[in-house]
Amino acid sequence: MNGNAIRGTSDMNESTVSAHSELDSDGDRLREHCGVFGVFGHPDAAALVALGLHALQHRGQEAAGIVSFDGRRFNSERRLGLVGDHFSDARIIERLAGHAAIGHNRYSTTGGTILRNVQPLFAELDGGGFAVGHNGNLTNALTLRRQLVREGAICQSTSDTEVILHLVARSTRPRLVDRFIEALRQLEGAYSLVALTNKKLIGARDPLGIRPLVLGDLNGTPILASETCALDIIGARHVRDVENGEIVVISKDGVESLKPFPPQRARPCIFEHIYFARPDSIVGGHSVYEVRKRMGIELAREAPAGADVIVPVPDSGVPAAIGYSQASGVPFELGIIRNHYVGRTFIEPTQQIRQLGVKLKHNVNRSQVAGKSVVLIDDSIVRGTTSVKIVQMVREAGAREVHMRVASPPITHPDFYGIDTPDQENLLAATRDLDAMREFIGCDSLAFLSVDGIYRAMGHERRDPVHPQYTDHCFTGDYPTALTDRSSRSEPLQLSLLAEAG
Amino acid sequence: MNGNAIRGTSDMNESTVSAHSELDSDGDRLREHCGVFGVFGHPDAAALVALGLHALQHRGQEAAGIVSFDGRRFNSERRLGLVGDHFSDARIIERLAGHAAIGHNRYSTTGGTILRNVQPLFAELDGGGFAVGHNGNLTNALTLRRQLVREGAICQSTSDTEVILHLVARSTRPRLVDRFIEALRQLEGAYSLVALTNKKLIGARDPLGIRPLVLGDLNGTPILASETCALDIIGARHVRDVENGEIVVISKDGVESLKPFPPQRARPCIFEHIYFARPDSIVGGHSVYEVRKRMGIELAREAPAGADVIVPVPDSGVPAAIGYSQASGVPFELGIIRNHYVGRTFIEPTQQIRQLGVKLKHNVNRSQVAGKSVVLIDDSIVRGTTSVKIVQMVREAGAREVHMRVASPPITHPDFYGIDTPDQENLLAATRDLDAMREFIGCDSLAFLSVDGIYRAMGHERRDPVHPQYTDHCFTGDYPTALTDRSSRSEPLQLSLLAEAG
Amino acid sequence: MNGNAIRGTSDMNESTVSAHSELDSDGDRLREHCGVFGVFGHPDAAALVALGLHALQHRGQEAAGIVSFDGRRFNSERRLGLVGDHFSDARIIERLAGHAAIGHNRYSTTGGTILRNVQPLFAELDGGGFAVGHNGNLTNALTLRRQLVREGAICQSTSDTEVILHLVARSTRPRLVDRFIEALRQLEGAYSLVALTNKKLIGARDPLGIRPLVLGDLNGTPILASETCALDIIGARHVRDVENGEIVVISKDGVESLKPFPPQRARPCIFEHIYFARPDSIVGGHSVYEVRKRMGIELAREAPAGADVIVPVPDSGVPAAIGYSQASGVPFELGIIRNHYVGRTFIEPTQQIRQLGVKLKHNVNRSQVAGKSVVLIDDSIVRGTTSVKIVQMVREAGAREVHMRVASPPITHPDFYGIDTPDQENLLAATRDLDAMREFIGCDSLAFLSVDGIYRAMGHERRDPVHPQYTDHCFTGDYPTALTDRSSRSEPLQLSLLAEAG
Amino acid sequence: MNGNAIRGTSDMNESTVSAHSELDSDGDRLREHCGVFGVFGHPDAAALVALGLHALQHRGQEAAGIVSFDGRRFNSERRLGLVGDHFSDARIIERLAGHAAIGHNRYSTTGGTILRNVQPLFAELDGGGFAVGHNGNLTNALTLRRQLVREGAICQSTSDTEVILHLVARSTRPRLVDRFIEALRQLEGAYSLVALTNKKLIGARDPLGIRPLVLGDLNGTPILASETCALDIIGARHVRDVENGEIVVISKDGVESLKPFPPQRARPCIFEHIYFARPDSIVGGHSVYEVRKRMGIELAREAPAGADVIVPVPDSGVPAAIGYSQASGVPFELGIIRNHYVGRTFIEPTQQIRQLGVKLKHNVNRSQVAGKSVVLIDDSIVRGTTSVKIVQMVREAGAREVHMRVASPPITHPDFYGIDTPDQENLLAATRDLDAMREFIGCDSLAFLSVDGIYRAMGHERRDPVHPQYTDHCFTGDYPTALTDRSSRSEPLQLSLLAEAG
Repeated sequence: MNGNAIRGTSDMNESTVSAHSELDSDGDRLREHCGVFGVFGHPDAAALVALGLHALQHRGQEAAGIVSFDGRRFNSERRLGLVGDHFSDARIIERLAGHAAIGHNRYSTTGGTILRNVQPLFAELDGGGFAVGHNGNLTNALTLRRQLVREGAICQSTSDTEVILHLVARSTRPRLVDRFIEALRQLEGAYSLVALTNKKLIGARDPLGIRPLVLGDLNGTPILASETCALDIIGARHVRDVENGEIVVISKDGVESLKPFPPQRARPCIFEHIYFARPDSIVGGHSVYEVRKRMGIELAREAPAGADVIVPVPDSGVPAAIGYSQASGVPFELGIIRNHYVGRTFIEPTQQIRQLGVKLKHNVNRSQVAGKSVVLIDDSIVRGTTSVKIVQMVREAGAREVHMRVASPPITHPDFYGIDTPDQENLLAATRDLDAMREFIGCDSLAFLSVDGIYRAMGHERRDPVHPQYTDHCFTGDYPTALTDRSSRSEPLQLSLLAEAG
Repeated sequence: MNGNAIRGTSDMNESTVSAHSELDSDGDRLREHCGVFGVFGHPDAAALVALGLHALQHRGQEAAGIVSFDGRRFNSERRLGLVGDHFSDARIIERLAGHAAIGHNRYSTTGGTILRNVQPLFAELDGGGFAVGHNGNLTNALTLRRQLVREGAICQSTSDTEVILHLVARSTRPRLVDRFIEALRQLEGAYSLVALTNKKLIGARDPLGIRPLVLGDLNGTPILASETCALDIIGARHVRDVENGEIVVISKDGVESLKPFPPQRARPCIFEHIYFARPDSIVGGHSVYEVRKRMGIELAREAPAGADVIVPVPDSGVPAAIGYSQASGVPFELGIIRNHYVGRTFIEPTQQIRQLGVKLKHNVNRSQVAGKSVVLIDDSIVRGTTSVKIVQMVREAGAREVHMRVASPPITHPDFYGIDTPDQENLLAATRDLDAMREFIGCDSLAFLSVDGIYRAMGHERRDPVHPQYTDHCFTGDYPTALTDRSSRSEPLQLSLLAEAG
Repeated sequence: MNGNAIRGTSDMNESTVSAHSELDSDGDRLREHCGVFGVFGHPDAAALVALGLHALQHRGQEAAGIVSFDGRRFNSERRLGLVGDHFSDARIIERLAGHAAIGHNRYSTTGGTILRNVQPLFAELDGGGFAVGHNGNLTNALTLRRQLVREGAICQSTSDTEVILHLVARSTRPRLVDRFIEALRQLEGAYSLVALTNKKLIGARDPLGIRPLVLGDLNGTPILASETCALDIIGARHVRDVENGEIVVISKDGVESLKPFPPQRARPCIFEHIYFARPDSIVGGHSVYEVRKRMGIELAREAPAGADVIVPVPDSGVPAAIGYSQASGVPFELGIIRNHYVGRTFIEPTQQIRQLGVKLKHNVNRSQVAGKSVVLIDDSIVRGTTSVKIVQMVREAGAREVHMRVASPPITHPDFYGIDTPDQENLLAATRDLDAMREFIGCDSLAFLSVDGIYRAMGHERRDPVHPQYTDHCFTGDYPTALTDRSSRSEPLQLSLLAEAG
Repeated sequence: MNGNAIRGTSDMNESTVSAHSELDSDGDRLREHCGVFGVFGHPDAAALVALGLHALQHRGQEAAGIVSFDGRRFNSERRLGLVGDHFSDARIIERLAGHAAIGHNRYSTTGGTILRNVQPLFAELDGGGFAVGHNGNLTNALTLRRQLVREGAICQSTSDTEVILHLVARSTRPRLVDRFIEALRQLEGAYSLVALTNKKLIGARDPLGIRPLVLGDLNGTPILASETCALDIIGARHVRDVENGEIVVISKDGVESLKPFPPQRARPCIFEHIYFARPDSIVGGHSVYEVRKRMGIELAREAPAGADVIVPVPDSGVPAAIGYSQASGVPFELGIIRNHYVGRTFIEPTQQIRQLGVKLKHNVNRSQVAGKSVVLIDDSIVRGTTSVKIVQMVREAGAREVHMRVASPPITHPDFYGIDTPDQENLLAATRDLDAMREFIGCDSLAFLSVDGIYRAMGHERRDPVHPQYTDHCFTGDYPTALTDRSSRSEPLQLSLLAEAG
């Protein structure tokens, strides 16, 4: 879920909780929006969800929530902060009684957040409770919301996910699953959903399968998760991916698969492979680590660099750098050390201090770069501001030459499917050619992996221009769905009260 | 607002904030449910509301909230705790920018509370924002809620007040005031409301005027308040009471009065005079202190007691005791001292300690009772458990005789209009005759003021049995409205998630 | 304990917790500094101490602490806030295991406080642990502290009480009781102490017995307390007052009385009777309520006022007003209503609001004063600022005449024995004659009780000028001890770190 | 500082803040005890200290504190938690005014901690304030403390560092620096200290230089820091290491070097190189990263393993694994992925869940180990419990063979100089020979680097048995100082109250 367009209107009077770090404050990172997890039929359902969310923490650090059903009631606990900050507490898990539960991780933004938007969202419908957690972003949420308010709906969050609840609530179909499907038919954009009723756990993936969702099994207990690493943490088996356009309905009668949409070819988001998914996950049948190494290998072929040492920009550049090193024979060294404590807490040094060029997050390992020709490997470049700092830092530590190699193509278009990208004018590659980018970054040479290069790393010969195998609009501008809100944006709803701290 | 019936279903899995004190833990007190306050057209609107709520603190100690409108947005701050705990903070008041604001105090319950129920409630309607604060209780809220959910509404609180919002949201009338009136027409029970739109401040009192609401003026700024003491705190003038069935619409064009209901005689709640209102307030044209003194005078006439000393049960018995003393000529002394610090914080002594008969809240002033014949004056008796303790305490301090005189009639019926009463079987007077009550309490004699006695203290010759001048069902069983929820109570809605701590 | 002189030097960089209310922010109240309580030989020792401190809450609202000894270890819990805020929590009481415990209440100041100063203070001495709680103030604490630091002592608080610990620690006497006595011999000023060792509970009262201390008995368990109301709360019997200059040593062998000082006549502080002690306490054999009523009776005799109504300034003026009313035959009415919620939380209205003359704490009960000649009864006048507001408020409510009668003499000198008084230049009576005071306050007539009047109310014929029966320097300038720090004040110690928030 | 021996006695009734993670809960990690940092003569002294402490966060995650001197007063802020949790807040930095400041990081323990022990500690001495922060551990702290208490000292912490303060306070030398030296002469064990007076910043390193301390320069501002990475973060230049037995006195007159101890050869702790220091630091002239890589290279020579892949145990095994891979030619792959979010927050899964073998901290990257012969590289083995889990995890992921190679010798003896080691009986290598260790761990082969191997990696031919170049008792049992407390341990002091939460 996202609701960027909506939230934008209410930033001014939010009492927010914000956290950002040195480099992130530049917004020079793409961010995944969410992770979801669900369990059906296990006495420790909520504890398993907590562990699953913990393994999916990289998909959202802002907030987390779990809803369980205990046979009589739904129980919900939602909190700002990391999963481990709250859901490691046995008292909270005890409040989440029941054999079925779903959970959700929310991403961390420089803007702010409010508890009311933390998922899973819940509504008491005629016929029983309904909870839902959403990974993705709807491209017609604002349009749908306007229509709903016009009909007398009262929204309590600024989340696009709440729209789904209202659509389900208003459906007149008798069965809850049918009401859910009727709601989904009205959605546009990307969504991987987990939903919980008093009888069922439901998983759903949008018709293109843009965001991931997998089905697992823990000694007979069905599990839904955004990534396989969340199955690994509890020792569950990876059964299969939920397919694009598939709805998986899990009840005491087993796992049922529905395909209510017209068949389409899947187009999963390529960024899960390049950047978001954990390297130990298997996404769409591919080892994420292996794919990233292959991107490094492709990059070494497309853009070799005679140099003394291969240095990854930590941590996300490491697998590509290992691949690049193995393909080129140039040694791999940790020439940049990352301070893991900086994560989400250190805010801003004092104004006067800032000009010292404080290195809160990264420091150069001088012994590995001084006097050397260095190849820096990064997974992607967004605004480029981090790259500027890194290159400067490496030069100041005495590197003779600094070559930048990027294991993905230039990002030229923003995302609307659940990745937090800056506006287009702030994307380095949207406004500059390669040489201008090199000059901006200040490196001696700069090269990106080609679009076909990432397709090769994924095992394809090339990108199929007619039926592209992946959602790759950030590199190509080829958006796979309509963008209704974007084309019709007019007066925003006020929604100010939803900004309240509570 | 109350929603007792509703809340009852979700108590079990609430994460609650509760506070109760020694005697209150017996539930041996009636409690007012709420206070409301509104300001239109003053640069310090929210600060004035905070002060008004502070003066109305006796009407609700559980939580407080303020919503303001600043010309562009609505701003809301709602908090658990006393008004002064949060709304004395300049930073909170600054967040409540705007020239119009409404506020609400919520009562303290032994059960628990959740932030989501704290008022004013707000909704973004088609046509603009709408906030409402409610003092009273609807007797058909659950019935209306069921109907709304059946039609696809999603409720976010367990408060009966939210029903009003949904009814307004669903009305198809073009003007917001008309939608509000259409909503009110569907309500049954007691309500004094303040509502805020982006153009207007609205006050409304139910057709019988059960709960109070007054109109004030601060140098030209219109004010709405539950009691005149809230006008006094800011130096505002008491203009008049809002009438029963009247809707007052305040805008930049002035104060407009609407009377959309069929005319009825007012029947304000007599308990405001007996117990709830502050002694320095003027309610329905009567000084509350003066009325209570007159109840003491009537009581001295109806039930004299030859004794050495008149001792009030502090603090609420004091005015009646002064009246009783003046009428009887027996000296008034503070024979029982109340520890004001106990208010809302001291919970429970250890189990072992309890048998010591710990006197957390009251202590006898031994020098005034030892060896004397004592008349204890209390304003009312609910369960009687407090009276038992007080009488025993006074005896142990050496009183020769203890006579109990109560300045209101026996309470035989529960309330459903915004007073928190125990179930009928727990009302002392519902199950016992006078002698059994005297025996239960352990006093040497016991007498209550008659029903006609309170009417005489109010300036009437007697209660008019055809058109009673006051809502007095607690003494008479004569409920002035239908009690729809009560007669139709069936399956409660689940509503469990609304119990969530957040 | 106090340490005013010391604290003064470190105010600037304290991170403080402060709380003050409308009228108190003027400092127009005298404040008692502390209450102490001790129990020896009861399985619920800490719970009993918590209850005792709760009954003594009026003697200090800033902080509270309890130290227990469980046979092996000392346990301590100290907290900012009211007793009931923390020590009503069973988990905290459980941490205070043991059959012996002492506790301490600290007063609330407009300045600030830090946890490190909260008592009882504890030190691990050679020979075992030693905890002490102090009510009073030493007049040579700063002088002693300078000497101790010169000898290598490291102080951790700004409290004068810590000096006692260091003196005990440095004594070379073999028995702890003897070391304690050796320490006491070096002290000057007022102190009522409770101390706890691994074998004994000790109570001590300074040679003049300035601050109160009583010995009680709960079914064989000895109790020490500042006032008898703290015995009443747990149902303990009042055995006797600890005498001036007496040290009471309680161990498993019983209660031993030591008198290590040269015999002197007692001179207890008269202000306990006038203002500080709870009206239900018996201090020095006198009912506090009865004494205050007699002060009102004396006042009616010395300064009658032909008027329509006697109105107490709540709450402390009530007993004197009852006495004045009974002696004069003029009716007693609650013409001023106090908002009890204001107590410790409501801070400051916005600047713009202040000029409205906001009535946070008191409101006039208009029906009782309008058109009448009113006699206001207060217990004392300090700065007079409150009186100004009250008189103005009563006039604005329509009183025809306002006469002020004060049930104690004019306060002309500050205190150094544990009462928080303003500097002398801020005492109304120190700089003005009676007529100037009347004009300042704005009343139609003003009268104080004479010094001999309070002695008569205490049962004496008059003040004995050679051996005054009470410590009464606030009215007479007759300080009963040397004031070493005051005469030698030079460079303050820095002590800044002690101001740290932690 | 440590105070292990002391703290041990007061664990039972501490109200503690504890945090530990899955593997750390086994205590299967060595922990550095502290980091120190000091600045003299910079307008942003406290902000620079905060940044320095942030770069030293790996040396202590439990608590942090800063003391500044502003020309008039000392200011102190000490907090539990990470540096960035509190000292990134501009308001806290503003409270730490002044041009000179020192700071301290404290390690995280499974036991607990209390604010009173958080450093720098401060005392107001005769002659002025004195603050000190300590990295290391004294081996005669308890003995000294007993002597001090016997002489009347009152200790307020359980920290061995407080002993230093008392020794300085009691010294009768006229100059503060001389009193400090007199205090140091009485100490035994390891210490790198930073101290602050109202005129000077002082750094001191024990006679053997066991713990590190470096001198830096920021455009003329002298800096003291535990490691060079803390100079890098603010762009300061590394001037030189403070020498063993050297005291560096920094004042407005510049940097003065004192050598008050008899000259000795330095014997720095080898564990800084093996495990504690950040890889980007230069310690004793050696690049930490480079040394660790060389340890991997030596290990590959001493204990080769024919295998398919080299997998580091993250994160500390990475540099050695890179060295091992480069020396052996076997490819380096990230076969184990660490969840960085687990750090300090996730506590314990529910009991029932634990048997699932939950992988909170590490997950195997199955694609890199399935079907392969794997060499796992770790930096050290303490208890071995982590190794057991890792090996099992790798086997379950389908590895054909698992060989464990450890880039340091077997740890057979506990540390008493500031490293948190388990008791000797819990050290895997103290009780088992190589084969028993291999069997315990469950790997196919196991090898450690030899003692001479680490000396070779440090650039020496071998360990000098007469004058060993490093403190290496954990591997050799050769403790470089007396262990007075250990040999004389008798009755512990009670110190229980110091365990209080506040």
